[in-house]
Amino acid sequence: MASKKNLVPRRDFIKTSALGLSALSIGLPLNSALATSCGSSGKDKLGIALVGLGNYSKGQLAPSLLETEHCYLSAIVTGTKEKEKEWAKKYNIPKGNIYNYENFDDIASNKDIDIVYIVLPNSMHAEFTIRAAKAGKHVICEKPMAVSVAECKAMIKACDDNNVKLSIGYRLQFDPYHKRIINLSKENTLGSINYVNADFAFTIGDPTQWRLKKDLAGGGALMDVGVYCIQACRYSFGQEPIALRAQAFNSGNEKFKEVNETITWQMEFPDGKISNSTTSYAMSVNSLFVSAQKGKAQLMPSYGYGGIKGFIKDEILEFPKFNQQQAQMDAFALNVKNNTDSIVPGEEGLKDMKVIEAIFKSLEQNGARILI
Amino acid sequence: MASKKNLVPRRDFIKTSALGLSALSIGLPLNSALATSCGSSGKDKLGIALVGLGNYSKGQLAPSLLETEHCYLSAIVTGTKEKEKEWAKKYNIPKGNIYNYENFDDIASNKDIDIVYIVLPNSMHAEFTIRAAKAGKHVICEKPMAVSVAECKAMIKACDDNNVKLSIGYRLQFDPYHKRIINLSKENTLGSINYVNADFAFTIGDPTQWRLKKDLAGGGALMDVGVYCIQACRYSFGQEPIALRAQAFNSGNEKFKEVNETITWQMEFPDGKISNSTTSYAMSVNSLFVSAQKGKAQLMPSYGYGGIKGFIKDEILEFPKFNQQQAQMDAFALNVKNNTDSIVPGEEGLKDMKVIEAIFKSLEQNGARILI
Repeated sequence: MASKKNLVPRRDFIKTSALGLSALSIGLPLNSALATSCGSSGKDKLGIALVGLGNYSKGQLAPSLLETEHCYLSAIVTGTKEKEKEWAKKYNIPKGNIYNYENFDDIASNKDIDIVYIVLPNSMHAEFTIRAAKAGKHVICEKPMAVSVAECKAMIKACDDNNVKLSIGYRLQFDPYHKRIINLSKENTLGSINYVNADFAFTIGDPTQWRLKKDLAGGGALMDVGVYCIQACRYSFGQEPIALRAQAFNSGNEKFKEVNETITWQMEFPDGKISNSTTSYAMSVNSLFVSAQKGKAQLMPSYGYGGIKGFIKDEILEFPKFNQQQAQMDAFALNVKNNTDSIVPGEEGLKDMKVIEAIFKSLEQNGARILI
Repeated sequence: MASKKNLVPRRDFIKTSALGLSALSIGLPLNSALATSCGSSGKDKLGIALVGLGNYSKGQLAPSLLETEHCYLSAIVTGTKEKEKEWAKKYNIPKGNIYNYENFDDIASNKDIDIVYIVLPNSMHAEFTIRAAKAGKHVICEKPMAVSVAECKAMIKACDDNNVKLSIGYRLQFDPYHKRIINLSKENTLGSINYVNADFAFTIGDPTQWRLKKDLAGGGALMDVGVYCIQACRYSFGQEPIALRAQAFNSGNEKFKEVNETITWQMEFPDGKISNSTTSYAMSVNSLFVSAQKGKAQLMPSYGYGGIKGFIKDEILEFPKFNQQQAQMDAFALNVKNNTDSIVPGEEGLKDMKVIEAIFKSLEQNGARILI
C-alpha cells in the first residue's frame, strides 16, 4: 500500500482533468484548480482547514500553523457561529473559507484547502475523513483514528480510492525524545527490548464533556490517552503485539457511567516479551519505561506537548523547546508536496484500533487472552 | 496480639525456671541460662545465629553484623562442612556455636544465641522458624516469610506460644528512601494516593539454582522479588488490598519449567484505587512509582541494598550511604532487649503471603478477580 502511494497514479491525471473541467464550469481559473488537484506542488505553503475548533485546535494547532514552513491555516470548519468571527479575525481567514458541517463538502472546489485536519470528537473522525477524501483533500485525522477497526479500514479505503494521503495526529512520532526511543530498536542500541511499561492517565474535570460520552468518544481514557501507551509500546519494541489481556476498574464515581474509569492491559510481543499499561481518567500518570538487555530508558513526563524529561541508559536526554504540532504538520505538508509516504499513515491508527478492540473484547470476556 | 507481646507473661517466668533447671542439669551456669531465656536484657550485644550460609548471609548479613551496635554474629547453622571452617575462622566463631540442620534444636541451651536469622530456601522457612521458636529463640525470617498462608500462621502461633518475637527480613522498611515513601500516606504529604506502579524483575542466571525449583522456592520471581512490590504497594497506599487479578507469561524458556517466568497483577485498594505490578526472572526492572492528588514520587532503582535514587514531587531524595541490614537487625535486637513490638512482625509477612496465594488462585482461574 505504501509503495502504491509513491507512484503517480494514472487516475490522478484523469481526476485532475475532471476537476479542471469542473473548475471551469464554476468559474474558477483553471490553473488554481490544477494547483490543488495536482497535490499543490506549485504552492509554497499548502492550505490547511481545521475541522472542529475545540481546545486542541485553539490552543495547539492554530498557533502552530503560524510557525509552520510548508502549510498555513487557510480555512476553518465549525458548527459554532460565534467561533467563525473570532477565528476569521484572529487568523485572517476570508469568508469564503469558513464552512460548517452541512456545507463541508463544498471544500472540494476550494483551491485554498489542500489538507483537512479532523479535530472532532472521535465518533466523527470516520465520517469527516471520508467526506474530506471524497472532496479530494488530503487528511490528517486526530487520534484515536476512529472508534472501530471497521471505520479505520473504511477511512483508509476512501483515501486510497480518492488518491489522497492520510495521516494520523500522532505528534509524538516527531518529538525528539520519542524519536530517540523509536530508534532504540531500529539501531539496536541497548540490545533486545524486554519490557515496556507505558502509563498515561489524568484526572478528568467537567463531567458533561464529550470525552465521557460513549457515543461521541467511543470509550474512555483508553481511546483518549491510552492510545498513546499502545503507540509507545509498539514503537518502543519496534514490533507488533500478538495477544493481550485487559482489566477494568471502576470506583463507582458517576462521571463514569458510560465509559471505563481505569483500564490496565498487558500485551505480548514476539519472543515472550511483554508490556504492561495503565490508563485512567481518575489519576495522574505520564510515563514510558523501556527495559532492554543492555540498559533502561525512561520518559517522565512522557506524552506532553512539551516538558518531556528522560534518560537512555546513562544519558540524560535534553532537547531545546520543540513544537511537535508544527513538525507533524510540516512533515505531512512535505509528504503532500513531494508525493512521499505519510510518516504516520492510516495503517498506524488502524493497528492501534485493533489493539483497542482486542482490549474491549478481553474486558467483555473477563480478562481472557485475545489474539490481535 | 501486639499488646500481648508487650506484657511480661507469666509463662515466661515458668519457662525461665524450667530452663534454669535444665541448664543446671547439663552443667551450664544458671546465670547464663537465665540471661538467654529472659530475653538477654542484661547483654550489651545479643547473639545472632545465621541459619543458611548462602550469598545473602555471606555478602550482606555477616558483614553487616560487624557493624551492628546491638547484636553480633555468635553462631552459624550450615549443612556444608567446608563452610564451617571458613566462617569460624573469618568471624571467630567457637566450635560449640556451629550447628547443622540435624542438631539445630540444641541451640536451645546455647546462651550465646538470642536471635536466629533464617536465611534458607523459602520452603524451609516455616520448619526452622518453628524449631527456633521451640528452642526459645527470637526469630528473624527472610522474605518471603514461607510458601503458604497456613505456614505463616503456624509460624506466628509457634512464636506466640513460645513467647519469642518474630520479624520478617523486610530490610526496606528501614531504608531512608522507603521510609519517606511510607510516610507519604501517614503524613498525608501529597494528599490521597491514587495509583502505585511497583515492578521488580531480574534476569536469572544459573538454571540449576533453588530459586527455580518449585519445592524449594514455592514459586518463581513473585515469591522472590515480586513480594517487594506487594510490600511497596501496601506501604505506599498505607492500606490493605481488597481484591486482585493476575496474569502469567511464559516465553517457553526451559529455565521456567517449574515456576512462572513473568507475572503481572493489579490490586484494588479502598475507594477504587489500584496498583499495577510486573515481576519476572527474564527482564530487568526495579521501580516504585506513586501518584497522589498533589504530586508524584518515584524510586528507581528502588529495591537494592543501596544505590536507590528517586524523588518526591519537586524534591530529589538524597541520603548518605546506608546499611539496611544493620539497621534492620539492630532494630530487632532493640525490640528484644526492650521487649517492644517487632517493627516488621510475622503479620506483615502473612499479609503479603495472602496476596501471593490470591495471585496464584487468580492465575489458576484465568485471571479472575480474587478477594483477599
